[in-house]
Amino acid sequence: MRMYDIIKNKRDHKELSKDEIDFFIENYVTGEVTDYQTSALLMAIYLNGFTEVETSNLTMAMVNSGDVIDLTMIDGIKLDKHSTGGVGDKTSLILIPMVAAAGGKVAKLSGRGLGHTGGTLDKLESIPGFNIEVDEAKFKDLVQNAGLVIAGQTQNLVPADKKIYALRDVTATVDSIPLIAASIMSKKIASGSDAILLDVKYGEGAFMKTAKDAEELARAMVSIGKNLGRNTSAAITLMGEPLGYAVGNALEIQEVIEVLSNRGPDDLRELCLELGAQMLKLGNIEVDVEKGRKLLEELLANGKALSKLRELVVNQGGDPAVIDNPKKFTISPLIHEVKSPKEGYVFDLDAEKVGISSLITGAGRETKADNIDHGAGILLKIKMGDYVKKGDVLATLYSSHENLFVKAEEVLLEAYDIQDKKPAKVSIINKII
Amino acid sequence: MRMYDIIKNKRDHKELSKDEIDFFIENYVTGEVTDYQTSALLMAIYLNGFTEVETSNLTMAMVNSGDVIDLTMIDGIKLDKHSTGGVGDKTSLILIPMVAAAGGKVAKLSGRGLGHTGGTLDKLESIPGFNIEVDEAKFKDLVQNAGLVIAGQTQNLVPADKKIYALRDVTATVDSIPLIAASIMSKKIASGSDAILLDVKYGEGAFMKTAKDAEELARAMVSIGKNLGRNTSAAITLMGEPLGYAVGNALEIQEVIEVLSNRGPDDLRELCLELGAQMLKLGNIEVDVEKGRKLLEELLANGKALSKLRELVVNQGGDPAVIDNPKKFTISPLIHEVKSPKEGYVFDLDAEKVGISSLITGAGRETKADNIDHGAGILLKIKMGDYVKKGDVLATLYSSHENLFVKAEEVLLEAYDIQDKKPAKVSIINKII
Repeated sequence: MRMYDIIKNKRDHKELSKDEIDFFIENYVTGEVTDYQTSALLMAIYLNGFTEVETSNLTMAMVNSGDVIDLTMIDGIKLDKHSTGGVGDKTSLILIPMVAAAGGKVAKLSGRGLGHTGGTLDKLESIPGFNIEVDEAKFKDLVQNAGLVIAGQTQNLVPADKKIYALRDVTATVDSIPLIAASIMSKKIASGSDAILLDVKYGEGAFMKTAKDAEELARAMVSIGKNLGRNTSAAITLMGEPLGYAVGNALEIQEVIEVLSNRGPDDLRELCLELGAQMLKLGNIEVDVEKGRKLLEELLANGKALSKLRELVVNQGGDPAVIDNPKKFTISPLIHEVKSPKEGYVFDLDAEKVGISSLITGAGRETKADNIDHGAGILLKIKMGDYVKKGDVLATLYSSHENLFVKAEEVLLEAYDIQDKKPAKVSIINKII
Repeated sequence: MRMYDIIKNKRDHKELSKDEIDFFIENYVTGEVTDYQTSALLMAIYLNGFTEVETSNLTMAMVNSGDVIDLTMIDGIKLDKHSTGGVGDKTSLILIPMVAAAGGKVAKLSGRGLGHTGGTLDKLESIPGFNIEVDEAKFKDLVQNAGLVIAGQTQNLVPADKKIYALRDVTATVDSIPLIAASIMSKKIASGSDAILLDVKYGEGAFMKTAKDAEELARAMVSIGKNLGRNTSAAITLMGEPLGYAVGNALEIQEVIEVLSNRGPDDLRELCLELGAQMLKLGNIEVDVEKGRKLLEELLANGKALSKLRELVVNQGGDPAVIDNPKKFTISPLIHEVKSPKEGYVFDLDAEKVGISSLITGAGRETKADNIDHGAGILLKIKMGDYVKKGDVLATLYSSHENLFVKAEEVLLEAYDIQDKKPAKVSIINKII
């Protein structure tokens, strides 16, 4: 078998066989197949497409390129959840404790933030002492006995994906639905869970711009999951304005605690209840989403969901004092209020621009090498549909450096579109697949 | 400007600007743009196509990547001729002396053979002492004063093409008409001629399988020539059976001398007269092809065309004794006759297989590093339409190694398709563009 013929076959619109895909991945990881041959193949896949079978075979070949976490000895259905990335998206940190409190077993490997979207690991690290490095034995122990763990991905999980993603990033082959789907699903499958809930975002600031594209990606991932024996569901959700009011790391954890304390913003609470009910159904804990939702509402009201978060923090070396009293979080010392330049309704609030503004305060990273100011970020006061007068405070910026406020404010003001008319109310969840 | 955006634009079916194409070529030659980005772009060009304007701009960018021979100080129209490669194709070596004898000025840079097709330089080197390395001053002097020169391409002529071709060869992006057209035309334009005659072959053993594909390639090259101010014509010619009877190097030069002596095979003579007349028209030497053809017939009859070949040989250090008496050529000492296994008409004679058989005798090279046995090859006795009895000699093989005959004979016998019926006569020239 030669890589040349594999490129030629895809170039000529042929379906690649499992053997061809395995040959490509195995030899690309070892370096026998070059970057320049791989990028030609990736462009041919981008332009000529990949069938469901090819995409599932690619996913499995990537899974097999590295370590696979085996959770089969743990009782019950092991659950995982993945979001394609949002602004102010702290749903995982609310969902996972809720679902674990309901008796689910959640094994989650998470990532860091890059650009305008935040990462779950960065948020967790704003908790003093919290350790995202968990070895495999402890990982399994936590899933089995506590019902939840959130850890960083180990170096040797799906090495083929890391190598291919780096190449796609510089050869304009990132936004290919089969390649995105295989990349996401390979990591989910390698991390050992039996059932997966996907939150696929769409909107201006999301990877997928329209609900239609998001649905196409969701269907590709659900198909991979089913082909590879994983019960998989996907929610297509709007990433219009940020979720909740907090954008940043410590600021978002404070809001997570609010929601788990049965308070907090409606949009965020509502999305977490809906996604959580889906996870309970995937995990066979409740037979339908209505019952799941009721159970989750109880766990928010009786404090058991919050207790599970506290347990997660303690299990992974974090200081529970900040959970018990969120005022103890270290928030960046400098404050700047952003005021409305005019009167009217907030007709649109661009999540991507809010994310970039938060990044500028120090809460995010532009490149992988950048450091994060965990206490920096934005507390929104005004969101879509709210009415403001000129000079009213729209949001408060937090930073450790005064000089960052000018640019952060400029970008945040661009995010607000204030008009005479009120926007129509749009549901965050567009569809469940 | 970023290579990423150039790849993305072609991926998204946009026309690349001249600046984008220049940026790509300039930075690929220096190594600033990587092989893996270039192969992604090449695949996008392969699949999404290149407009005439893009193809002309690519050609000119490649020309500018290295040295350009300036022939403007030489009087008159400087002519060049290019063939896409055939078996037994010694037309250049007949055409160029004929056209120079008619008063044309021919400046030709030529290549070596690879695989089943021969190369003009290899054929010339079967003449003792003939030197294909000609410096630029001498090159110009020969064009001006003798009206003809045939030399090897210098290292720094179109370096971008060398680098891109090597990459295309391993990424399944060779058979793209705009890329082939730009590759050929960049070399023609860099070698400084004003008018170009292209011989675009089609058939089983040719790069282009059908007359339609050959015509598409020819039109792409003629369009580049016109866009870049070079008067360009193309002949679409069938590469069915080999041209003439001789396949090899010294064997082919002997046949060249036959044709220039007003004898030789009809098919070869006819093609040379037609292509030669086109060149005289391109060079403004005769107003129409009928007059050109008459003039060339005279030059064959009165020995002036042959004298020009002798002059070429003397000018480039070759021994004219072999031209005066072709029996003095060193022909490989071992001879093997291939006999017909059955009776009937030669219905088809596969040029590619004849070329491979000749390569096996030692006359060609499989890889660029191989040495050539200039005296080896094949003299066909029987061609398409001829009637043979079982045991009649089809061809004579020449080699320096007895053990090569078994495989060479086997392949040559596969080339002959002997049937009860006579094949229809097909004209070699399909169309002139």
